Amino acid sequence: MPRFGAAGQVVPTGIVPIGIISKANPTALTNPNFPLRGDVIAFLGELVGMTIFIFLALAGVQITLISPAGSGNLVPTLMGPSYDQIQSIAFCFGTAITVALFFCAPISGGCLNPAVVVALLMTGNLPFFRAFLLLIAELVGAILGSYFANWVTSGVLLGVNAVAPGYNNAQATFAEALLTCCLCLTVLFIIIEKNTLVTFAPFVVGTVVFMCHLIGTHIDGTSINPARSFGAAVVTGKWTSQHWVFWVGPITGALFSVIIYVMFKSLRYEVQSDFE
Amino acid sequence: MPRFGAAGQVVPTGIVPIGIISKANPTALTNPNFPLRGDVIAFLGELVGMTIFIFLALAGVQITLISPAGSGNLVPTLMGPSYDQIQSIAFCFGTAITVALFFCAPISGGCLNPAVVVALLMTGNLPFFRAFLLLIAELVGAILGSYFANWVTSGVLLGVNAVAPGYNNAQATFAEALLTCCLCLTVLFIIIEKNTLVTFAPFVVGTVVFMCHLIGTHIDGTSINPARSFGAAVVTGKWTSQHWVFWVGPITGALFSVIIYVMFKSLRYEVQSDFE
Amino acid sequence: MPRFGAAGQVVPTGIVPIGIISKANPTALTNPNFPLRGDVIAFLGELVGMTIFIFLALAGVQITLISPAGSGNLVPTLMGPSYDQIQSIAFCFGTAITVALFFCAPISGGCLNPAVVVALLMTGNLPFFRAFLLLIAELVGAILGSYFANWVTSGVLLGVNAVAPGYNNAQATFAEALLTCCLCLTVLFIIIEKNTLVTFAPFVVGTVVFMCHLIGTHIDGTSINPARSFGAAVVTGKWTSQHWVFWVGPITGALFSVIIYVMFKSLRYEVQSDFE
Amino acid sequence: MPRFGAAGQVVPTGIVPIGIISKANPTALTNPNFPLRGDVIAFLGELVGMTIFIFLALAGVQITLISPAGSGNLVPTLMGPSYDQIQSIAFCFGTAITVALFFCAPISGGCLNPAVVVALLMTGNLPFFRAFLLLIAELVGAILGSYFANWVTSGVLLGVNAVAPGYNNAQATFAEALLTCCLCLTVLFIIIEKNTLVTFAPFVVGTVVFMCHLIGTHIDGTSINPARSFGAAVVTGKWTSQHWVFWVGPITGALFSVIIYVMFKSLRYEVQSDFE
Repeated sequence: MPRFGAAGQVVPTGIVPIGIISKANPTALTNPNFPLRGDVIAFLGELVGMTIFIFLALAGVQITLISPAGSGNLVPTLMGPSYDQIQSIAFCFGTAITVALFFCAPISGGCLNPAVVVALLMTGNLPFFRAFLLLIAELVGAILGSYFANWVTSGVLLGVNAVAPGYNNAQATFAEALLTCCLCLTVLFIIIEKNTLVTFAPFVVGTVVFMCHLIGTHIDGTSINPARSFGAAVVTGKWTSQHWVFWVGPITGALFSVIIYVMFKSLRYEVQSDFE
Repeated sequence: MPRFGAAGQVVPTGIVPIGIISKANPTALTNPNFPLRGDVIAFLGELVGMTIFIFLALAGVQITLISPAGSGNLVPTLMGPSYDQIQSIAFCFGTAITVALFFCAPISGGCLNPAVVVALLMTGNLPFFRAFLLLIAELVGAILGSYFANWVTSGVLLGVNAVAPGYNNAQATFAEALLTCCLCLTVLFIIIEKNTLVTFAPFVVGTVVFMCHLIGTHIDGTSINPARSFGAAVVTGKWTSQHWVFWVGPITGALFSVIIYVMFKSLRYEVQSDFE
Repeated sequence: MPRFGAAGQVVPTGIVPIGIISKANPTALTNPNFPLRGDVIAFLGELVGMTIFIFLALAGVQITLISPAGSGNLVPTLMGPSYDQIQSIAFCFGTAITVALFFCAPISGGCLNPAVVVALLMTGNLPFFRAFLLLIAELVGAILGSYFANWVTSGVLLGVNAVAPGYNNAQATFAEALLTCCLCLTVLFIIIEKNTLVTFAPFVVGTVVFMCHLIGTHIDGTSINPARSFGAAVVTGKWTSQHWVFWVGPITGALFSVIIYVMFKSLRYEVQSDFE
Repeated sequence: MPRFGAAGQVVPTGIVPIGIISKANPTALTNPNFPLRGDVIAFLGELVGMTIFIFLALAGVQITLISPAGSGNLVPTLMGPSYDQIQSIAFCFGTAITVALFFCAPISGGCLNPAVVVALLMTGNLPFFRAFLLLIAELVGAILGSYFANWVTSGVLLGVNAVAPGYNNAQATFAEALLTCCLCLTVLFIIIEKNTLVTFAPFVVGTVVFMCHLIGTHIDGTSINPARSFGAAVVTGKWTSQHWVFWVGPITGALFSVIIYVMFKSLRYEVQSDFE
């Protein structure tokens, strides 16, 4: 194994099975000049990445909700999850997207979220066809991930989004919009603007997703990601009457972030010396 | 979407709406030679960043305090928040300022705290007019953020600072001063001194804010930030008689940090070889 | 002590005892041309690193399980660990492997897991003899670490893997395979592919291990590492009838990850410009 | 305020009060050729850093132990702290040393621990006189920090180290030695060996200290740092009959780490190509 952190290290390049496959199948996909090659790679990367993300996140949420409290009893669900369950759920989602991005960020860019796709499409960072492919990959990956999470854990899958008692649809939609706006602003100002933290992007995105779930889990289970809500609804068959909230809210938040981003880009915020 | 982590990547530059806006409105603000341009950008960046910070932090605190404990019952508030609520509140504040800095650090520098503004003003790192603008932006942003947090969560906003029973005003003021001193020392020695961790500044500041809330939440709800106390008081209308503690304590702490910083700068601490 | 973060620092090179030892014993092992020298270093590094990892992880798990809940009573174990015990256990494992990698990553590469050894062997990143040595080092280190953890904590060592009531062997095996696949994918795409996060590898691996334990602890105590299950079984003498799950599951997961890795390498995923 | 993360930034250099002080007092300490100048800077930096570390850590522990559990009642102390209190205590110590290192790592190197001083002294990385100065600074700083922590929190300071019921002195000493060994190994292999993670040292050390407190808090309150035990004992006046454990254990651990370090340095572990 190559030693990371050591100077002057040498990487063995003769990886046998890869050599066999790419020599045996000189198809269009291994030809760098094939037009759709990048799209196929991005689609597959996003599909596998989204499956990893949703599997890890929803399986973690399920374990948190079906495990007992310190008293040995289950938490009564009338008032929603307890505050320490909320913290664990936030860790599950934040860490799950970080792990998924370790894998797919260098392959497909790693949107893993239709709202982020919308923000990148509107700011000219994704062509329409690529955006469409990523959306399909995210929806299919979310279904696959929810299915795996349902299979390896016991009980009925609980991570379905629904507006909690005590909140109205407007509040939930606005909360989703504000939280998704924070997520998309981070993507735009750190990743698209190539801030120095861009090399650290999986942790940056994980931090924002962790924060959003600390707030949203009590309100509506936190979507900030229409594909995540869609996948859980497909696998459990629980389509609540407020399912539209988890599409309208996040996409509205993406629009907010685009407005703020365009405003600061119009001001050329990056061209300022100190105290000019 | 540009792939972060991949070599030789190309960023699409034709962002349509931005081009439209800056061409259609060739105002003073898009002219790099306009004198107040930097101040306007910094004001707007700080305003939006502070709104994000206070919205995320206070909404997270509210959710933590109104969610049930593992028993399914609410935590009785006679003895203050439970120790695991304190941990969640610390995560809320530490992560919220990290997320806000992802957005506003490259735009306005990201003080997000009048005490930090005072420390930078006194060490010559902020001119007086810019410091005044940032202070106004922070106060307005804190009110906006508190209002949003109040609106999307249920119940009366609980994140108002007040000295807890069992503590006197002198203890709370001294605790605020010591904790704010740690925060300002970090800003001065990491960000102003351009330590190698400066590229990691949002996480560095978040770590300090997390630590401060592990301690201060039981004492007075943790201010270390007069604007945060001001915003919560304005939106809830709860002006406690000790509101001055949350201005005097943090600003005293900023003075402590300036004294320590000036001492080590006078000694030219950065010009020492090992074991000279 | 050399100051980290300061420019122009000088490192003292005259480390006395080392000079004495290497001059007094000019054996084959200090001769850079001795053929087995790299293998001996890797074996010793992996042995000490695995001992550190398993000692820290299993001692932390033991403390978490024998400490009382907030009520002052122990958690009844009929329904498995509570959700906040699961979070602490995940922190124990994730942080323990990070700490062990601080030490052994620059020495032996830091697999610390037979499943990772299998993934690296199959992708041509480890020769067979080196892989065999690392496997032996991991098994011996896991026994030593389990023994130390058992000795310094009170009570019978509890960190033995077993499929929990409510789960069948197929579910546990599949869960182990999926979680180990995520771990191996991270190793392959971050460390072997030399992503920019490679300098941060101990934290990257720790993050994945943290995530896996948030899910697997309720199902079967989380193995994702046959050596960890083996060490705990040897020291406690508790060989459950499902011990094979903790070998077949992780190694199957390693195979999954190799298939995905080979697919993307065959597509030459790293040779794509944006939106080609 | 200088913008971190922005390209081409300009740092204002005319920091007024510093200029005044160093011009008004052209003493020996501002003269770069004065022999003891580096020692005075290191002493002061270590003193302030240790005060920050112990104040934050012990105040955080105190708040965790005097806050109620989720039931609203205090945790009965017969069986020691609850497992979620242990997690919070680990966050307090790990984060406190990270914050202290933000400040003092570039000034004094940031040992903040007599056991680390011993390890660096024995490997030739600290001259004897500098090591002695750092030790004095650590003991004085620990007393100051404990005093501040006692003053701003209510109740008697609880963070005194003592071997818990159910453990004998040999177990506690061995546990302290193993945990301190992990800490010192990290310092030696990351900071002294200048691994790429050295720029990240405050977080690296904080991670190890967090891990150690997850284990040691149930056994003896976790010392791994004689100065921390000394400071708490001085301020509370509680000198237990096992106080020697918190000196012998950590220093024995430092010796273990030196032996391991010398072994790998004798093997010239850093001079190995892959699979030589």
